[in-house]
Amino acid sequence: MQKRLIFITNDDGYRSGGIAALIELARPYGNIVVVAPEEGQSGMSSALTIKTPIRLRKVQQEDGLTIYACSGTPVDCVKLAMSQVFERKPDLLLSGINHGSNTAASVIYSGTLGATAEGALYDIPSIGFSLNDHSSTADFTACIPYGRIIIDRALAHPFAKHTFVNVNFPRLPYNEIKGIKLCRQNRGAWVEEFEKRIDPHGNDYYWMTGLFQNHEKEAGDADENAIQDGYIAIVPHQIDMTNYKELERLKEVWKFE
Amino acid sequence: MQKRLIFITNDDGYRSGGIAALIELARPYGNIVVVAPEEGQSGMSSALTIKTPIRLRKVQQEDGLTIYACSGTPVDCVKLAMSQVFERKPDLLLSGINHGSNTAASVIYSGTLGATAEGALYDIPSIGFSLNDHSSTADFTACIPYGRIIIDRALAHPFAKHTFVNVNFPRLPYNEIKGIKLCRQNRGAWVEEFEKRIDPHGNDYYWMTGLFQNHEKEAGDADENAIQDGYIAIVPHQIDMTNYKELERLKEVWKFE
Repeated sequence: MQKRLIFITNDDGYRSGGIAALIELARPYGNIVVVAPEEGQSGMSSALTIKTPIRLRKVQQEDGLTIYACSGTPVDCVKLAMSQVFERKPDLLLSGINHGSNTAASVIYSGTLGATAEGALYDIPSIGFSLNDHSSTADFTACIPYGRIIIDRALAHPFAKHTFVNVNFPRLPYNEIKGIKLCRQNRGAWVEEFEKRIDPHGNDYYWMTGLFQNHEKEAGDADENAIQDGYIAIVPHQIDMTNYKELERLKEVWKFE
Repeated sequence: MQKRLIFITNDDGYRSGGIAALIELARPYGNIVVVAPEEGQSGMSSALTIKTPIRLRKVQQEDGLTIYACSGTPVDCVKLAMSQVFERKPDLLLSGINHGSNTAASVIYSGTLGATAEGALYDIPSIGFSLNDHSSTADFTACIPYGRIIIDRALAHPFAKHTFVNVNFPRLPYNEIKGIKLCRQNRGAWVEEFEKRIDPHGNDYYWMTGLFQNHEKEAGDADENAIQDGYIAIVPHQIDMTNYKELERLKEVWKFE
């Protein structure tokens, strides 16, 4: 039987601790090809590089593991890999493990999940992983056995097409994790603050800093709440962002036809 | 009665023809504040500028119209404006008019719609406008009367919270537009090709080029099809990307609890 082909990418760059953990996690599942950004690309969402050229270089090749670094965004990595690296469609795309959680509206800003959504657009079963610890030295130990439980389940019972799966791990050691919960996206959002400074030439500039506001403090079925409660949260996200209920209502009240 | 406060942004930059058309379109509705990118930011999705500082400068102030240029992405423009420019919440956010359509999966990559979604996250009624013409000299004449019909309807019958509205105009003169249609997101996607070149130093690089594949050739209720048929397409999009149907099914088959 042909070995599975596993496509790994992320947004923290090919040298991050999180992608090393994901490679270890994925090793038993098949041959791994990593195409990941040269440098950190956090908060790049599904951004594309259109106006500047993109570079790709092979940085490592060993038995069952090939690593490429790409100068572009996470979504560039997926598109360029699908066009120039893979001769057949990968069996699985895994993105992460992100240094920092990606719950609630973070799905909109996250490069990790931008790449995961892109995999779903290519009809590859795609799973994004994030750990609720922003530190560059975050401890991914507990993600490995739990991540394998999730992948085993997804291989045994595949999720729907045009759907991608978002896994968030709490910042807890293995034996303190309470379990795995299927969740919906929490309705909270980031409220940005900006720190205004004056440069040496007398001109203003701003640094973005963010504060997450959880608008649903008691929602045990929402991803952000689940990780705060000590669970691993899994949300199936869809590519189709149509609000169908509102579409039907607006047809009635806006009466264009 | 206090005049309405209209927030205008885009992804083609504050000097684009599309934003000038949108300002003209919006003039009758209230006082306008533009906070838009210094330069083109197409394909920037909901990307955030985290690692570099952001600059903001006032470029124009006249009766009822103030224009700021921001060095960041479209979403940076919204966040920075909400934090540093507006003293009260705007009554309406209008984004565009984009030079080029934003139907189907383009909602994921578009900076125009990234900014529109961001408005919805701040609970501002937010509408994105795009014309199916990529040219920098595109003719936005027909967008103005039709855009006003749509805004009038949205003011009379507001759309739901955490929903943003995506309007795509066909590339047609006023009297050839067949009407306005409420639609769902077409399931097609972009398939990227890359053009490989060799730089003067002998190193490879790639240019991204895209080809839209309409996977639903006959879907009259989908946005891409509507504009091809000569209609203006309106899709209500939601911030919550949870696939609820798949969530319930996976709870049954993955059995984590």
